[in-house]
Amino acid sequence: MIVIMQAGATEAQIDGVAKKLESLGFGIQITRGEKQTIIGAIGDKSVLQEENLTILPGVQELVHVRKPYKRASREFHPDNSIIRLGKDIAIGEGLPVLVIAGPCTVENREQMMTTARRVAKEGARALRGGAFKPRTSPYSFQGLEEEGLKLLAEARKETNLPIVTEVLDTRHVDLVAQYADVMQIGARNMQNFNLLKEVGKLKKPVLLKRGLSATIEELLLSAEYIMHSGSPDVILCERGIRTHETGTRNTLDLSAIPHLKEVTHLPVV
Amino acid sequence: MIVIMQAGATEAQIDGVAKKLESLGFGIQITRGEKQTIIGAIGDKSVLQEENLTILPGVQELVHVRKPYKRASREFHPDNSIIRLGKDIAIGEGLPVLVIAGPCTVENREQMMTTARRVAKEGARALRGGAFKPRTSPYSFQGLEEEGLKLLAEARKETNLPIVTEVLDTRHVDLVAQYADVMQIGARNMQNFNLLKEVGKLKKPVLLKRGLSATIEELLLSAEYIMHSGSPDVILCERGIRTHETGTRNTLDLSAIPHLKEVTHLPVV
Amino acid sequence: MIVIMQAGATEAQIDGVAKKLESLGFGIQITRGEKQTIIGAIGDKSVLQEENLTILPGVQELVHVRKPYKRASREFHPDNSIIRLGKDIAIGEGLPVLVIAGPCTVENREQMMTTARRVAKEGARALRGGAFKPRTSPYSFQGLEEEGLKLLAEARKETNLPIVTEVLDTRHVDLVAQYADVMQIGARNMQNFNLLKEVGKLKKPVLLKRGLSATIEELLLSAEYIMHSGSPDVILCERGIRTHETGTRNTLDLSAIPHLKEVTHLPVV
Amino acid sequence: MIVIMQAGATEAQIDGVAKKLESLGFGIQITRGEKQTIIGAIGDKSVLQEENLTILPGVQELVHVRKPYKRASREFHPDNSIIRLGKDIAIGEGLPVLVIAGPCTVENREQMMTTARRVAKEGARALRGGAFKPRTSPYSFQGLEEEGLKLLAEARKETNLPIVTEVLDTRHVDLVAQYADVMQIGARNMQNFNLLKEVGKLKKPVLLKRGLSATIEELLLSAEYIMHSGSPDVILCERGIRTHETGTRNTLDLSAIPHLKEVTHLPVV
Repeated sequence: MIVIMQAGATEAQIDGVAKKLESLGFGIQITRGEKQTIIGAIGDKSVLQEENLTILPGVQELVHVRKPYKRASREFHPDNSIIRLGKDIAIGEGLPVLVIAGPCTVENREQMMTTARRVAKEGARALRGGAFKPRTSPYSFQGLEEEGLKLLAEARKETNLPIVTEVLDTRHVDLVAQYADVMQIGARNMQNFNLLKEVGKLKKPVLLKRGLSATIEELLLSAEYIMHSGSPDVILCERGIRTHETGTRNTLDLSAIPHLKEVTHLPVV
Repeated sequence: MIVIMQAGATEAQIDGVAKKLESLGFGIQITRGEKQTIIGAIGDKSVLQEENLTILPGVQELVHVRKPYKRASREFHPDNSIIRLGKDIAIGEGLPVLVIAGPCTVENREQMMTTARRVAKEGARALRGGAFKPRTSPYSFQGLEEEGLKLLAEARKETNLPIVTEVLDTRHVDLVAQYADVMQIGARNMQNFNLLKEVGKLKKPVLLKRGLSATIEELLLSAEYIMHSGSPDVILCERGIRTHETGTRNTLDLSAIPHLKEVTHLPVV
Repeated sequence: MIVIMQAGATEAQIDGVAKKLESLGFGIQITRGEKQTIIGAIGDKSVLQEENLTILPGVQELVHVRKPYKRASREFHPDNSIIRLGKDIAIGEGLPVLVIAGPCTVENREQMMTTARRVAKEGARALRGGAFKPRTSPYSFQGLEEEGLKLLAEARKETNLPIVTEVLDTRHVDLVAQYADVMQIGARNMQNFNLLKEVGKLKKPVLLKRGLSATIEELLLSAEYIMHSGSPDVILCERGIRTHETGTRNTLDLSAIPHLKEVTHLPVV
Repeated sequence: MIVIMQAGATEAQIDGVAKKLESLGFGIQITRGEKQTIIGAIGDKSVLQEENLTILPGVQELVHVRKPYKRASREFHPDNSIIRLGKDIAIGEGLPVLVIAGPCTVENREQMMTTARRVAKEGARALRGGAFKPRTSPYSFQGLEEEGLKLLAEARKETNLPIVTEVLDTRHVDLVAQYADVMQIGARNMQNFNLLKEVGKLKKPVLLKRGLSATIEELLLSAEYIMHSGSPDVILCERGIRTHETGTRNTLDLSAIPHLKEVTHLPVV
């Protein structure tokens, strides 16, 4: 970590910050520029969570040198992760491109089975459908819930495709896990941290969708929650962010993908 | 609702859309422009939830004339709502300005009591502190949980200030409700719809914070979830949105406030 | 155009808006819903530029049915435009993909010639380099100006690649046009309307880059400025927009491209 | 400036960066952490404009310690700037709040004079009106140009209010300067750097509006352009930025104002 002192910080202020860092167990090294001084601090940043160094007199800003996520970082795990979705299917191996398809919402048996047969025939490798639906309006249809999960299971039986389906509520994690091969966390729940923890405990693969205003770093910290709770198998999903553009529904952040490939070993869909 | 047909839509396409709308129970009225035709549809829009009119041939776009929220709308309730936070305190009455204050996180008894006494002395009318904390990183302190709620209750006893505190998880709603005077929904949970429903059932006042990338309309639809579940007492909180600016932590959307005052009767903090 | 009246607008208000529209030469058609009335207005919207209908009593909002651009619209020109960059090269024909390459800034002869030879060898079909540079800071190098243009011309002579180069100032349009095969308008000048007009008068191809916060519609209106001034040959460039994400420099708006392909005949790079 | 090396950078890479910095005249100081090394570089950053240190092997990122603007910085000029708009009026002195008012566009003598008299009577201290108008569409009215400037001058003669009016084009700077007391740079031209330079040469006060997607730092760098060209009298205007919110026209970035007050001495309207 680096502490950048304000131009014009006094010796007493520099000394105060240095002593504070030392008292927290950091090794320090001071670099004095013509106008500004910087203090490098070497040690365990986690002790800092509740100390707010930035309010010490003379401090301009803190620069964190290390990434705040560990398990999700490529430093920790240089090879690409390969995640098994079912007996025969893995994600992260590269070609052939894997398609996950299905209806937005599971509506009824006929719709579900017709769609499942068709997407299987067209080459999809996994089946997706929503039984619990996050709806912006309370007046919209909220999903078939367990009945929808049963229809998904029936479609899996016929097509042999593994199921990806969303869980919205910590109280439903066990129920959804009875049916799902992959637990989906939707964009609106990317920072529902208790849900991430409960889903992580299952040790099942998780499809984690990026929140509408989430940064790439926040997405990886949400993956870290799941991995820290027990499941190493997180599939990241870049599904578009919210921007000023209204001509399209979301702005797919394509540039996020090479950036993710550089900093994490997790697969991206 | 208005259906705008594409320039060049055929008579058969216009007729198809008109018949579809009639079959859904809408009264229709067709306006033919020089280049484009529009179809006004009069009736109950809620039947439309699963029909996707926009994929019918020749349709350019749908324009919704009515606001999608009802209970939160000023149309439904022309006077400002006044919400009681405790025996003596109400919000929505205008002056004097009401201040809700306290520590970000409840850390220990000394910190809590010192802060509570001081904010009471300085004129705050309600006490806020976090016992359950939504943290971007799994390695950050997650809050004292029930122990924190007890410290808040102790501070209320001494200061007589009502407590505002956050609930993060549907499983903790009853626990938090035992201590809180006002249930806080944080920005990251603004679209955690199951949490909104559970909190609404309590019929307690709710402080609903706007999500980082939520529109004003989405904020009001989240209020609608709470109101629809039973609690009319929703306090909206404009706490800043996420934008391209990184020099400040959030961008306070000041213009949202007069806009909210126009479309809703709910108070804004 | 459609005028949506407020719920609760009076008959007098509806009548007032209707009379105003008629006085401006519009044909009108009124649709009365259970709660709200809408007025369709048929006629020439351009007379409306200085009339602000939205301030008339009882008006909720105006919905524009027709696209505000004409020459750039696919309605006006259903086939894809094919734009010639030089004798042998055209853009808009699809495969093979055309690459335009070169240095960000023309720095000196050696750098320019080395780069030009290399990009020609690797298959680029046009050469790009900046002689006038828009720089965020006044302390940054601002480009070689005419000397840079001469080096570009020298590189063209050797490689036979047409030149794409940026113009920043209405006063430099003729100078840049002496050297450039394609005039580039940078993102920061996408709404420098006088520059668009001057460049349009040349009747040369123009590469128009999307502004950092421009909508797709605004990009097309800027193309319309150029086309309206005389040049039909506008090449649109989606180069990324500014969003909340700071991990990457810009957010490439990939979804803009299929949307553009639907609404305009102009090529997109 | 600080160079943060990648975790795992080799000694040879660290040495390579150090030698490069020394060859550019920087003094350096190396801090070796358990995992990562940082190199502090002390010296004149302006020599770096064309050297791209970030592509050297082993470099993770560069952190700039000093602000990129000088004349606009409060470090350079600790007291608030006070800017005279006319003989009797100054901005930057605090109370009473100064109001600049007038019509969006100068349309004709009657409109201009009526508005000017009224805003003078209501207490405005300066008169604003547009003679050159930046319009999103080429089909919109583009302003009365010099005729509009003459009407502004006539209104000034009667009301004694100084005139603020926009200039759009480097070719019109002298013309507008004949009439204007304050030269306005609009949001769309905030990074029209040649216009900033030409306007700066006049040594007249300049009202500089923040671009729709400009950061606070970019706004100050645009002010720096004007100041560097000769005029110290820049008035910054926070007029709202573009965000995802569509319920309001712009998002006023209120938090920008205290931030600006901290880093610059220039007044903000």
